[in-house]
Amino acid sequence: MYIENINSPADLKGLDIEALRVVCDETRAAIIKRVSRHGGHVGPNLGFVEATVALHYVFNAPTDKFVFDVSHQCYPHKILTGRASGFYGDDDQMNAVSGFTSPAESPLYDNFEIGHTSTSISLATGLQKARDIKGTKENIVVVIGDGSLSGGEAFEGFDEASELGTGIIIVVNDNEMSIAENHGGIYKNLRALRESKGQCGHNWFKALGFDYQYVEEGHDVEKLIAAFQSVKDTDKPTVVHVHTEKGHGFAPAVEDKEGWHWGNPFDPKDGSRPESPASESYEELFSNWMLEQMKTDPTIVAISAGVPIGAGFDAAKRELAGAQHVDVGIAEEQACAMASGMAKGGLRPVWSVHSTFIQRTYDQLAQDLCVNQNPAVVNVTLGGIGTMNDITHVCLFDIPMLCSIPGLIYMAPTTCEEYFAMLSWAVRQDRKPIAIRVPSNGVVHSDAEVDAEYSYEPSYKIAKKGSQVAVIAAGSFYQKGESVVRLLADKGIDATLVNPRYLHSVDAAVLDSLKAGHKLVVTLEDGCKDGGFGDRIASYYGDSDMKVLVGGIKKDFYDRFDQQQILADNRLLDGQIVEDVLRILSR
Amino acid sequence: MYIENINSPADLKGLDIEALRVVCDETRAAIIKRVSRHGGHVGPNLGFVEATVALHYVFNAPTDKFVFDVSHQCYPHKILTGRASGFYGDDDQMNAVSGFTSPAESPLYDNFEIGHTSTSISLATGLQKARDIKGTKENIVVVIGDGSLSGGEAFEGFDEASELGTGIIIVVNDNEMSIAENHGGIYKNLRALRESKGQCGHNWFKALGFDYQYVEEGHDVEKLIAAFQSVKDTDKPTVVHVHTEKGHGFAPAVEDKEGWHWGNPFDPKDGSRPESPASESYEELFSNWMLEQMKTDPTIVAISAGVPIGAGFDAAKRELAGAQHVDVGIAEEQACAMASGMAKGGLRPVWSVHSTFIQRTYDQLAQDLCVNQNPAVVNVTLGGIGTMNDITHVCLFDIPMLCSIPGLIYMAPTTCEEYFAMLSWAVRQDRKPIAIRVPSNGVVHSDAEVDAEYSYEPSYKIAKKGSQVAVIAAGSFYQKGESVVRLLADKGIDATLVNPRYLHSVDAAVLDSLKAGHKLVVTLEDGCKDGGFGDRIASYYGDSDMKVLVGGIKKDFYDRFDQQQILADNRLLDGQIVEDVLRILSR
Repeated sequence: MYIENINSPADLKGLDIEALRVVCDETRAAIIKRVSRHGGHVGPNLGFVEATVALHYVFNAPTDKFVFDVSHQCYPHKILTGRASGFYGDDDQMNAVSGFTSPAESPLYDNFEIGHTSTSISLATGLQKARDIKGTKENIVVVIGDGSLSGGEAFEGFDEASELGTGIIIVVNDNEMSIAENHGGIYKNLRALRESKGQCGHNWFKALGFDYQYVEEGHDVEKLIAAFQSVKDTDKPTVVHVHTEKGHGFAPAVEDKEGWHWGNPFDPKDGSRPESPASESYEELFSNWMLEQMKTDPTIVAISAGVPIGAGFDAAKRELAGAQHVDVGIAEEQACAMASGMAKGGLRPVWSVHSTFIQRTYDQLAQDLCVNQNPAVVNVTLGGIGTMNDITHVCLFDIPMLCSIPGLIYMAPTTCEEYFAMLSWAVRQDRKPIAIRVPSNGVVHSDAEVDAEYSYEPSYKIAKKGSQVAVIAAGSFYQKGESVVRLLADKGIDATLVNPRYLHSVDAAVLDSLKAGHKLVVTLEDGCKDGGFGDRIASYYGDSDMKVLVGGIKKDFYDRFDQQQILADNRLLDGQIVEDVLRILSR
Repeated sequence: MYIENINSPADLKGLDIEALRVVCDETRAAIIKRVSRHGGHVGPNLGFVEATVALHYVFNAPTDKFVFDVSHQCYPHKILTGRASGFYGDDDQMNAVSGFTSPAESPLYDNFEIGHTSTSISLATGLQKARDIKGTKENIVVVIGDGSLSGGEAFEGFDEASELGTGIIIVVNDNEMSIAENHGGIYKNLRALRESKGQCGHNWFKALGFDYQYVEEGHDVEKLIAAFQSVKDTDKPTVVHVHTEKGHGFAPAVEDKEGWHWGNPFDPKDGSRPESPASESYEELFSNWMLEQMKTDPTIVAISAGVPIGAGFDAAKRELAGAQHVDVGIAEEQACAMASGMAKGGLRPVWSVHSTFIQRTYDQLAQDLCVNQNPAVVNVTLGGIGTMNDITHVCLFDIPMLCSIPGLIYMAPTTCEEYFAMLSWAVRQDRKPIAIRVPSNGVVHSDAEVDAEYSYEPSYKIAKKGSQVAVIAAGSFYQKGESVVRLLADKGIDATLVNPRYLHSVDAAVLDSLKAGHKLVVTLEDGCKDGGFGDRIASYYGDSDMKVLVGGIKKDFYDRFDQQQILADNRLLDGQIVEDVLRILSR
């Protein structure tokens, strides 16, 4: 084993090509060991093994600075920078290493915490400018995948790196794939560049002012080393376009590149995974529902931004939907503005986006969509504490963000039946943009009656009338509200339960009506409480005698957290809420 | 006069070239008439007169759809689509016409309300997709200036338009200028294309898959007509690159293109403006302060995103700052991420950005900057009701947005002295990103002592101790708070006055201390109240006996509003606040 003895890239320098090839094999094996046991990004990492070994052989980190876009291809980098035990070690060692670059984990070798796409070049131009002002000479090396090129921030980064005009090396890792297949005009150019071995007429990178070279053999460490050596210490903005294979060296990941982009643990021998018990998912229910609508309504269009599977649109369903499914690549701004344009043009677009990624479109929601009041639907997925838990992927901030944008209706269904009733109304109405927060606490069914028609002004629904205490429990915390009300009943308190259904502003009539017979309102929301749903209710009641207990998650950084611990820390366990209610009532 | 008889583009169709040239002259004269009396965008409109006449001569609006990027070049379009009286008419007629495209104003001819940059192509791809699904054949025509090409959303739009592969015509209005000079690698390509008359080797547009043609004579209506006719009804994504002159036909605007991008009324004979009385501005004070710092500290860098003058950095000051001023073009995402990278690299960047444009960087603030906790400073300008008042430029939403992002300190100075004390601390500290909301109620001086050191945890300052009522007045509403406290004194109430200084979260110790001796807290903030500063204070006090009156502006659309009216509608006039306080106290 070489990699056990590689504690830093310096330990690579004395090795010859044959030894480096062994290092590549061992690195690949270590990656497979980790992802097969721990889960994680498979294809992106397996495809960038040789290039990473070559980069660390040629450049001198930490003096030379690396920035990895999205950083889901950083596993080989971690293995070569003192963190190999996170790959071949035991569970604790694996848990100690995150799936993204992290200065907290490695202040020397990881320059930024990165998990969202297309940010690397922009960040690196800051290092470039700092170096130029300080007059030092280190190399700034960016690694960006072809899939990330569709994001506007990446273009802005290329544009500025060229403007600065000094040395920066941008390695374009072209594996001919985004998470799913690529979409966008730039991929026509990448294809032409691959097919011409970098020689085609109109080169997008050269057009922007970059020096450019092409490396066809992206898994040949010797050729990669030669290419990187030829650009090392350049004083020009430079692109090295490397052709790689996503999932290289692990047959299942090569055969099904989209399926193996990220995954749960598997059998490293054949890639098989234990059958998971069949269970409903909103992804599947949503995509099936959309396909049903499409059959009779040609104006229904599903939009995704690089993660179609996040809305259940796997390759087969994308084919079924045909022209009625649009994936714009990882380009959320485009998705949002295009949805507005489609709605203006008479279509009924539904754009599905994870809570953590809707952050990328504040201004498009505000300007392109809401100022224009075009009736597009935004299907916000994974919002809440029970979904993704890396610091860069936390899904807690969509409520404060969306609820501060004028003209946006934000609905929070509490059950499967209510979700599809709201969705059905949203695609039929033609006056306003509607966002719907898909429940994230599993598919909960209910035979309670749900409305077929909804309104633009919030209209809370009183699910159970009681007195003293009213629990207003939104979206995926509604069942928590039900549970709290049951526990309060055990304590002799007949609480009122309200399903607010709308998050974007308060239902003054219902709130006023609660003043009769209630002393305390408890709000529950599955997200950041600061500036969220409950704060606005507390504000509404501010000058009245009503007491308000706002239940939500404190604004803060959360990383690889335990959901129950977060709930407990924020006094959101059912029993804690009941305790707090009793404490307030007893005053 | 022709233009008095042009009620729609159809009225252009029968005219010959000579008559069209007269229409151009009359259109230019009408623009000058409006901007000289009413103020507005000068250079962008004067430079696009001939092209607009040619577009409306060739295409058939409203069947064919136009989308104007930023839409600050839409005056000729408005003149030719039934709104000429807004240009040569009286004041009421001028006021009836906005400075941007607006479906509310012209449902037939204006497809979108647009005021932010780089959104046009993305919006138009929605129309393109809708047309393709419906099977109709209209032309989709986008007009985008070279300055707007630096924004990432524009790239995402190009990328998708090419992907769709059907007809869309993107007119690139290349006047060799953004608001200030252009910055970015793409401008190297535009220059090469201009110098080669569209023939240079690596064409950025062709690389993305577009058909392309170049028109050198952007003020020759005959040549423009020929070019547009040649692409009309194309079934391919097509770029027509038109070389124009910003300010064409009005010598002062041609001579000082940046100064005449937008302006207040002037004498149409010579462009002279009445001397405005000398008064201090934060733009000037800030840029002077920065230049002073730069003299002794090479790590201080000023960043702007296309609007350097918004931070006082005119051409002369940019030259003085040299490498310590970076304008990234209209590319706020880049500005934010680059600031983070610079801070990581050891610089002390200060990025100045208008409140309405910081909306374009939610995710960059959250991910690139705050997750990484790099000590960049964000200088947020114009936040508040007293600044810009077009619907697309309202500056009310930065507090709810920034205060929902973990790890961002948001400071609100109340006077000139406090602002520079905070700024000075912010650029010296090296642990966290700091945003500062520059007061927007004029430069107020005070000899009250201000702290030199600040903290990351909010620390409110009690400016005056009283009882019964505490007024917590933030930033540019602090003087309103002082005034309310004086008025309350007239009513016999000795109110406490608090300068919170920090917006991003509450100072629990001070809030708790106010429980003694106070029955009511009044919060005042110069921005959208929903999810803002006061709501969080109301939430904090929710389960206590403290009453809270949250003073701020209701989340809503506001367009070309009267500031005093908005204040009155939101019960924010000093007297109204006093009335409300007395009402609550009397219960």
